[in-house]
Amino acid sequence: MSSSDIFIGETIGTAILILLGGGVCAAVTLKASKARNAGWLAIAFGWGFAVMTAVYISGPLSGAHLNPAVTVALAITNSDWSDVPVYFAGQMLGAMIGATLVWVAYYGQFHAHLTDKEIVGGPGAQATKVKAVEAQETGAGPVLGIFSTGPEIRHAVQNLLTEIVGTIVLILAVLTQGLNDKGNGLGVLGGLITALVVVAIGLSLGGPTGYAINPARDLGPRIVHALLPLPNKGGSDWGYAWVPVVGPLIGGAIAAGIYNVAFA
Amino acid sequence: MSSSDIFIGETIGTAILILLGGGVCAAVTLKASKARNAGWLAIAFGWGFAVMTAVYISGPLSGAHLNPAVTVALAITNSDWSDVPVYFAGQMLGAMIGATLVWVAYYGQFHAHLTDKEIVGGPGAQATKVKAVEAQETGAGPVLGIFSTGPEIRHAVQNLLTEIVGTIVLILAVLTQGLNDKGNGLGVLGGLITALVVVAIGLSLGGPTGYAINPARDLGPRIVHALLPLPNKGGSDWGYAWVPVVGPLIGGAIAAGIYNVAFA
Amino acid sequence: MSSSDIFIGETIGTAILILLGGGVCAAVTLKASKARNAGWLAIAFGWGFAVMTAVYISGPLSGAHLNPAVTVALAITNSDWSDVPVYFAGQMLGAMIGATLVWVAYYGQFHAHLTDKEIVGGPGAQATKVKAVEAQETGAGPVLGIFSTGPEIRHAVQNLLTEIVGTIVLILAVLTQGLNDKGNGLGVLGGLITALVVVAIGLSLGGPTGYAINPARDLGPRIVHALLPLPNKGGSDWGYAWVPVVGPLIGGAIAAGIYNVAFA
Amino acid sequence: MSSSDIFIGETIGTAILILLGGGVCAAVTLKASKARNAGWLAIAFGWGFAVMTAVYISGPLSGAHLNPAVTVALAITNSDWSDVPVYFAGQMLGAMIGATLVWVAYYGQFHAHLTDKEIVGGPGAQATKVKAVEAQETGAGPVLGIFSTGPEIRHAVQNLLTEIVGTIVLILAVLTQGLNDKGNGLGVLGGLITALVVVAIGLSLGGPTGYAINPARDLGPRIVHALLPLPNKGGSDWGYAWVPVVGPLIGGAIAAGIYNVAFA
Repeated sequence: MSSSDIFIGETIGTAILILLGGGVCAAVTLKASKARNAGWLAIAFGWGFAVMTAVYISGPLSGAHLNPAVTVALAITNSDWSDVPVYFAGQMLGAMIGATLVWVAYYGQFHAHLTDKEIVGGPGAQATKVKAVEAQETGAGPVLGIFSTGPEIRHAVQNLLTEIVGTIVLILAVLTQGLNDKGNGLGVLGGLITALVVVAIGLSLGGPTGYAINPARDLGPRIVHALLPLPNKGGSDWGYAWVPVVGPLIGGAIAAGIYNVAFA
Repeated sequence: MSSSDIFIGETIGTAILILLGGGVCAAVTLKASKARNAGWLAIAFGWGFAVMTAVYISGPLSGAHLNPAVTVALAITNSDWSDVPVYFAGQMLGAMIGATLVWVAYYGQFHAHLTDKEIVGGPGAQATKVKAVEAQETGAGPVLGIFSTGPEIRHAVQNLLTEIVGTIVLILAVLTQGLNDKGNGLGVLGGLITALVVVAIGLSLGGPTGYAINPARDLGPRIVHALLPLPNKGGSDWGYAWVPVVGPLIGGAIAAGIYNVAFA
Repeated sequence: MSSSDIFIGETIGTAILILLGGGVCAAVTLKASKARNAGWLAIAFGWGFAVMTAVYISGPLSGAHLNPAVTVALAITNSDWSDVPVYFAGQMLGAMIGATLVWVAYYGQFHAHLTDKEIVGGPGAQATKVKAVEAQETGAGPVLGIFSTGPEIRHAVQNLLTEIVGTIVLILAVLTQGLNDKGNGLGVLGGLITALVVVAIGLSLGGPTGYAINPARDLGPRIVHALLPLPNKGGSDWGYAWVPVVGPLIGGAIAAGIYNVAFA
Repeated sequence: MSSSDIFIGETIGTAILILLGGGVCAAVTLKASKARNAGWLAIAFGWGFAVMTAVYISGPLSGAHLNPAVTVALAITNSDWSDVPVYFAGQMLGAMIGATLVWVAYYGQFHAHLTDKEIVGGPGAQATKVKAVEAQETGAGPVLGIFSTGPEIRHAVQNLLTEIVGTIVLILAVLTQGLNDKGNGLGVLGGLITALVVVAIGLSLGGPTGYAINPARDLGPRIVHALLPLPNKGGSDWGYAWVPVVGPLIGGAIAAGIYNVAFA
């Protein structure tokens, strides 16, 4: 793969991953969303199928890493770090584009949620259904959660361990796919299987920290949250930002080590 | 494929798509439905598996476009517009047939919902369970939502952008499937993968406008809503009708452009 | 396939179909079930994956019809009725065995639900959690629903039409699978795709009548309901029993006709 | 496969199975989990995709039994018991490792749930959201349920029968997979199909006892529950512990017998 294909593929793929993944968080969180309060199962399936969609679209261009922890783990197992900077650059740019597109798609919902006022207008405005607005649920906390993860109980060691454990599961599943594929099609099935692994991790290990398991998925949108002109948005919780970056990178490296010892 | 196979395939396929997709909206909306209030996850999975069912049934006849945005995108990437009118005709006819079949399958539920009275009769009527009817939830608004989409916040620019973004994701996923398929089966898996992409779009980008992402899916049933003899049905919101037609067509054209530049 | 393989395969397969399908209805309905009130999405996925499990287990023996409507449709399209009686016999026997196994697996739950008393005993009984029993939800109506379908609004013509429409979708999906399979694996994927078609029909068309779409699925368990020594079980609603038998058979025949005209 | 590959594969695979399976029970049960009260559907999908993840990771090393009932059934049908002890050892060790990792990942949540106090600290502690703690839901009963299964109605015969019936379905599905696979890929699809069979069993037969259907899945974590320094954890319900061990082994043997008579 050429460097430009890698960069374009990772940028498009990670943008779609974050557009759909951040999108489901917006959908279940924000006022005036039809999916509001759809629950944790919707979030877990939404992120899983976001991964699947992004993998199939970007796979032909870049191999669909979409996650610096995947890139690091493959660099370790292949002993080849030459393309790592290009992958990282595409992943971070894509994550920031994706988070911005969530804001575009839910522009009115963000505004209504953060200001208690809904945008009313456009053609046919006389038929607009004005919803009762629950003032007490408005706030900056849930809105940051549309962009980046945060812990339910803030404890650096446990939060880090939870992200490490979740990422080990993800990366082991990615690394062993080639072993199941003996020329009979798991390469093609891989995007679906990976998606359901992500659903599993979300359902099972997402409770404490919201399962970043991907540094770009957390850091890119957090930067966008800091930059966007959202009213009353509050802080971007930079004190926590290192955990979902460092944890997944450690998890990816450990998984690569397990793979090299037990499977290779 | 012959023009008659295309027309018949698109008509049958789009009819099944709208029968099942409109059906799940009826199922979770209407009084006296066992699935009432089953929630957004049911709607997202219902529409996704509706796509899958329609794709596998109509695929052998017409290639299963089922969506004018797909037809336009493929015409752009293949530089061949000759079959476009036949596809469009089948899609619109099928969508209208499908919406009519939803009305047939939920005939009593529509009547009960819109009139506060349930039809009681037929064999064994003495055992009929008469349900308490919640008068305040009756109304024309949710019933139009069984046929066509509508925005939570009515703002033409945002609504259009949301439909464009969602359609770009769908069409990119459709166009890149061929690149994943190297003679090893994604062609056959494609219906399932596309279904789960539609689930992802529903969960993630359906919140603001209800994700038409398909002009026929919205316009055909809206015409049927205007024609059907439903009591107290209210207006068909023609002021909004152009958004879910124009947005997906723009999105399809943009996705085709991205594909031609980055993937082809 | 030999007649004995057909009979054994259909018996085992339909028993597993009804064990799992009836089981999910028991799980969400009965007192002292961990899955109580899990909702319509659980029912739709439960029946769908019940079909999948039964198809893969019985497929190698009998081709996994598991449904007289499938058998009739294939007899029409193949113009071969010779094995039809053997298929019917296995399907009816299997459905009755499956319904009986639901009763075995949920024996204490049935008893608690119908009598307001829970069975307490066995080793470690001192640790038994005695649940508060909601007397008002006890009753025979929901219990019949674990065995057989029933309409929300009792109207023979509409109920019949709903079953016909649902069955047409199912049978068209089954009949066209061979057209998608060009030696590349949908034969193996078929059980999964059929399962998700059944999930789609359940979500979309299950609201009015509970989607029998299979005469054996409804009639076999209804007979078992009439025979089992369940306390306070009420009647078996024989006045409705013809609808979920006749409707699916008509639907299967119509689907076979559509297939012969449009696809063959 | 070498004995060391079998042992390592079963240990890693069963650890991942229990990490994700126990994890989803922790996620929906414990205080300060984002997935709290996500419901039975989340549990059923969580356990199913846990099986899938573990099967694909451990399959290349050990064939992914991950369950003594699978090992026994394959020993019966293959008339080869030589590797059984190695499989059992890896499964028990893996289950204990997995249960310990659940405790690590949810450390603060366990503590908060069992003591009514949340751990507050680490970087950015000033932003920690302190949740209202519902004292009445704290208790040892649900916490044991994160490790091991327990009956809703304690009745040894029924509980045993429910586990036997559920395991028969699982093992028949596993044993017949080879019959569907005629060199065209179900071997690769098998992990996904088995996962959805487990979802089906959970939705349909999990209501009475919580569907252990795997002796290692229940006994290993129960031992860990007895050993871990959890405050106020209560007893480990050893009086019930034999049921989810004996039931699945009987079910596996019966399924092997059915397979040998009807399918082999």
